[in-house]
Amino acid sequence: MSLRSLVNQLDLCSINTATLGHRLPVEQTLELIARAGFGAIAPWRRDMEGRDLRKVGRQLRDSGLKVNAYCRSTYLTAQDSDGFKKSLLDNGNAIKEAAELQADCFVMVVGGLPEGSKDIAGARAQVTEGISLLREQARSHGIALALEPLHPMYAADRSCLSTLEQALDLCEQIEPQGFDSLGVAVDVYHCWWDPKLHGQIERAGMQQRILGLHVSDWLVPTRDMLLDRGMMGDGVIDLQGIRHSVEAAGYRGPIEVEIFSRDRWWTLEEEHVLKTCAQRLQEVC
Amino acid sequence: MSLRSLVNQLDLCSINTATLGHRLPVEQTLELIARAGFGAIAPWRRDMEGRDLRKVGRQLRDSGLKVNAYCRSTYLTAQDSDGFKKSLLDNGNAIKEAAELQADCFVMVVGGLPEGSKDIAGARAQVTEGISLLREQARSHGIALALEPLHPMYAADRSCLSTLEQALDLCEQIEPQGFDSLGVAVDVYHCWWDPKLHGQIERAGMQQRILGLHVSDWLVPTRDMLLDRGMMGDGVIDLQGIRHSVEAAGYRGPIEVEIFSRDRWWTLEEEHVLKTCAQRLQEVC
Repeated sequence: MSLRSLVNQLDLCSINTATLGHRLPVEQTLELIARAGFGAIAPWRRDMEGRDLRKVGRQLRDSGLKVNAYCRSTYLTAQDSDGFKKSLLDNGNAIKEAAELQADCFVMVVGGLPEGSKDIAGARAQVTEGISLLREQARSHGIALALEPLHPMYAADRSCLSTLEQALDLCEQIEPQGFDSLGVAVDVYHCWWDPKLHGQIERAGMQQRILGLHVSDWLVPTRDMLLDRGMMGDGVIDLQGIRHSVEAAGYRGPIEVEIFSRDRWWTLEEEHVLKTCAQRLQEVC
Repeated sequence: MSLRSLVNQLDLCSINTATLGHRLPVEQTLELIARAGFGAIAPWRRDMEGRDLRKVGRQLRDSGLKVNAYCRSTYLTAQDSDGFKKSLLDNGNAIKEAAELQADCFVMVVGGLPEGSKDIAGARAQVTEGISLLREQARSHGIALALEPLHPMYAADRSCLSTLEQALDLCEQIEPQGFDSLGVAVDVYHCWWDPKLHGQIERAGMQQRILGLHVSDWLVPTRDMLLDRGMMGDGVIDLQGIRHSVEAAGYRGPIEVEIFSRDRWWTLEEEHVLKTCAQRLQEVC
């Protein structure tokens, strides 16, 4: 399967609202994204605070935007069973919101080590249990869960799920019969370094588990571990190579731009950021 | 095999000179390390600049310190074949220095992407070729090469060798008959997050390829990607768990402290740092 051309095909592309820094109300954000020609949006829960979700959902559909993903889970890892239950409840609510917005999937960032813990195996066991329980709720709402492995530099404080291989092992453990409601989001920022990346993308594809492809870039130097992602083309990631593997593995969903960039892209006007995203998607992705 | 006790056993422990910030001349550094009761030292090439290595070697032996490792290779990854050859020459010289110092091994940090490159597979191929060539030189000097996978956050600019699994694959590719001169250094800072860590330590041990165990800690938050490592016990790494696996896999070499800490440990007096290392090694490692 050859690489889809993105030239004049922004309808194949999505903007994750974090890319715009959550500076505008979601109603305005979605208008800007639709007007810039993108086919989809991946909003965050924080965008929906105080909103009537049915109304926002209607506005999204009226604007022609697909909601390819809803971001994201509350961390599953917790110090005690009360914390764990609380997280399950909260994630259960988020799954309902995702259904209300007719999102294709709900993105799971699983959490790192609970405060004071050095037990990463324990944290991972908690994640397995939590995903397994939430999957039932997601199924009943017709929402898929996209497990997003984060870069290993976030293992302590954001995600003890660190590689695509680990995420797929988890999917197979919970869904041994093949894909039903559990898949993965491939974010180039988190997994570009992985020597097993292309093989694991192929594995994910064979199971129809690729639920998203997120693009941005890895800057050299990276000045902040969280908020210094680069615009596509400004860093060292082989974006076309990774997209090639993901599409060869059968993925036909949108290419989603997700850039956390406090000191650069979040300081610039939203229209300018969207224009740059559009240009780079067509030129370097 | 049970965990070796380090209580009153600092002779089992080594100080990597980077831990002291390279602020003193090596002659003074080694005296301080020996006087503090440590059994070994891992010096850097920069410590030896302008020195007569035979003289330093003699002083090391007189002080009772073993040289468990010599740090470290020039990056193998280069933009062109001239750069690659230059790196091989330089590393060849370093191997001779390691032999002069009677070091047990020479530590290989392989390099990231060459300037301007996005081809990580190409960089890895260069590394394979370079290691293969340097191994011949190391053999002829009776020095082992310790491949040190670095944390994936350094994949772009320091090491495209990112996991223990990848390092062992490389060892097996170059030395398919089993260990001869090629092994790995397990640095907890670089690999604590890896879901495959304990399995790969076991694999390394079965092949007698574990040539070093480096300790420090991962701080939360980490304020600098290079120079904010923690003292053992101040972070989230399960140090005893990892040492347990490494020793169960047959490793009997020294536990080496390697801490890069610009804003904390490198601002404190060397004697104080060494005292703290000694204490933490006995209490939390």
